[in-house]
Amino acid sequence: MKHQQLTQFCEAVFIKMGCSEKDAKLATEVLTIADLRGIDSHGVARLSGYVRLWKAGRINTTPNIKIVHESPSTAVIDADAALGLVAAPFAMKVAIEKALICGTGWVSVRNSNHFGIAGIHAEMALEHDMIGMAMTNASPLVAPTFSKERLLGTNPIAVAIPADKEPPFIGDFATTTAANGKLEILQRESKNAPTGWVQTKSGEESNDPHEVKNGGALLPLGSDREHGSHKGFILGSIVDIFSAVLSGANYGPWAPPFVSFLPLSDDPVGLGLGHFFGAMRIDAFRPAEEFKSHMDNWLSRFRNATPINENQPVVIPGDPERQLSQERLNTDIPLNDLVLKDLQSLAEEFKIEL
Amino acid sequence: MKHQQLTQFCEAVFIKMGCSEKDAKLATEVLTIADLRGIDSHGVARLSGYVRLWKAGRINTTPNIKIVHESPSTAVIDADAALGLVAAPFAMKVAIEKALICGTGWVSVRNSNHFGIAGIHAEMALEHDMIGMAMTNASPLVAPTFSKERLLGTNPIAVAIPADKEPPFIGDFATTTAANGKLEILQRESKNAPTGWVQTKSGEESNDPHEVKNGGALLPLGSDREHGSHKGFILGSIVDIFSAVLSGANYGPWAPPFVSFLPLSDDPVGLGLGHFFGAMRIDAFRPAEEFKSHMDNWLSRFRNATPINENQPVVIPGDPERQLSQERLNTDIPLNDLVLKDLQSLAEEFKIEL
Repeated sequence: MKHQQLTQFCEAVFIKMGCSEKDAKLATEVLTIADLRGIDSHGVARLSGYVRLWKAGRINTTPNIKIVHESPSTAVIDADAALGLVAAPFAMKVAIEKALICGTGWVSVRNSNHFGIAGIHAEMALEHDMIGMAMTNASPLVAPTFSKERLLGTNPIAVAIPADKEPPFIGDFATTTAANGKLEILQRESKNAPTGWVQTKSGEESNDPHEVKNGGALLPLGSDREHGSHKGFILGSIVDIFSAVLSGANYGPWAPPFVSFLPLSDDPVGLGLGHFFGAMRIDAFRPAEEFKSHMDNWLSRFRNATPINENQPVVIPGDPERQLSQERLNTDIPLNDLVLKDLQSLAEEFKIEL
Repeated sequence: MKHQQLTQFCEAVFIKMGCSEKDAKLATEVLTIADLRGIDSHGVARLSGYVRLWKAGRINTTPNIKIVHESPSTAVIDADAALGLVAAPFAMKVAIEKALICGTGWVSVRNSNHFGIAGIHAEMALEHDMIGMAMTNASPLVAPTFSKERLLGTNPIAVAIPADKEPPFIGDFATTTAANGKLEILQRESKNAPTGWVQTKSGEESNDPHEVKNGGALLPLGSDREHGSHKGFILGSIVDIFSAVLSGANYGPWAPPFVSFLPLSDDPVGLGLGHFFGAMRIDAFRPAEEFKSHMDNWLSRFRNATPINENQPVVIPGDPERQLSQERLNTDIPLNDLVLKDLQSLAEEFKIEL
């Protein structure tokens, strides 16, 4: 499907959900950029999930998002159960405004929902010659090292760093060995998962990509203790604490599930999901031109590192998504049959043309 | 050896190197706490290395450490080639002072040297009811995913988060699958390294713990692409950029080697090694008591997560080091024969009693 066609459709759905035109545009941009970049699990494939959460009363499409606590360089925002797709750009703007005044800005958000891909929020800092950061907690699907309980989400971290002539460095990764989206691809292709991605519900090794649906868990980055999974556990924990304990959202196993058919915790420890954003002005450290020229040098040195195999050069974080985005803008966004069917149901339900 | 005896000896060595009494005490504390915690590779085992760097003129024991650029929430510090053990606490203090005034403080340091364990610097924030962060770049020993070149250090990240009745959360980890110290232990015990820790100099899998000495490389957290090593590469890169590109230190393959027998780069891109520190006031986000009581809940929930194996509970970051520290304070710090011999040579050379 053409990017523009998908955009129009998503906007129409968000409007039907009661979003303002501005919010519908914003949420659509965040969603469809994921599809452009090939992070298909976080794009329009999620649209019907948002609709179901809205129907279940868990998403408020006319929210009053506001700052509830602040200092010169920090803020806590209550998203009033907004779409995370809308709350996140709001919060990132506050971080950038704080950074303009005192060098850096740090914003923790509570009472929010799934915010799409982390990278796009972090990138908002780039045009201001700032480094941007974004992270979020998520539905508990990950077991800490040595446990069979699912206590953390895939808790992604994104960091965007500007350069001059080179494109920016954009790291955006789940703090698990593999993101859930990777497992979904294997499920569709009826393939096994590599050892170290998931464990069974009793904590044994597994290669079944459906394991999480059977009560099993995703594993923290590192896979097992010998290969550093305690480090992935630390990373996921930091994201959880910065996003939810700092803001007053639900943390750890209390984080609300993305799927509307799973009940919310009956002893919540906070409000909704949590996110954390940061913006650092480059010139709060050194002149921006100087920094960006060194970033060019950094990027070209790493891009040209001697490869092990001549056909596989080193990949600079952000490059593959940028290339795919350009391709898909010029051609089409491929949608798999299940996603297309899902969008068609929405089209019928809301009486919108697809 | 008793902790106190080791402390007296280290202080005497630093004084002989020309450090002020205050700096000698500070550097000794950072070093010996590593030994107490069982991070033996970063304790007194490094002392003779610092002496050799000082003799080679790469460490300045009477430095004029100063802020060279600042904003309300940030600073860049030139460490004047100081011991990192001394520059790091100086920089962390500046981060804390900035946070007292505007909520958070972020300090990037150039022209420094190896700073010991990252965790101890991050922990300085705890007594102020702040979250502390510390990271540093280091000698290039790590190959990016798909490369056989060593372009990054083991680039550790430490984050210290206060709680109320529970002990604090202290994550402190190298962004590689295994730290160099783990390989040193295997070398002493003539054991093989697990697959995924190192590669040969042509980029092949290896189980030889001496591989790094043969021109091979440590691997980013995740070990290989299928298990997320590109994420470990992103983490190591962020540490490198925050520590060195923001401050004006040497980054990537230009980072100065810890061992004095390896030459410095003849086309440096900055000054010395770089570090990055952060401090965030809890009450810049929510009342500290409220946050700390939720951290107690977080910590006890994760500590009591259902284990896979009853004899191996979930490990809270910081717990093992705290327990070992207490044990070693009450008894002895075990020193291996090579380290003891090393200290004895220093004792003879400097005419100090050991």
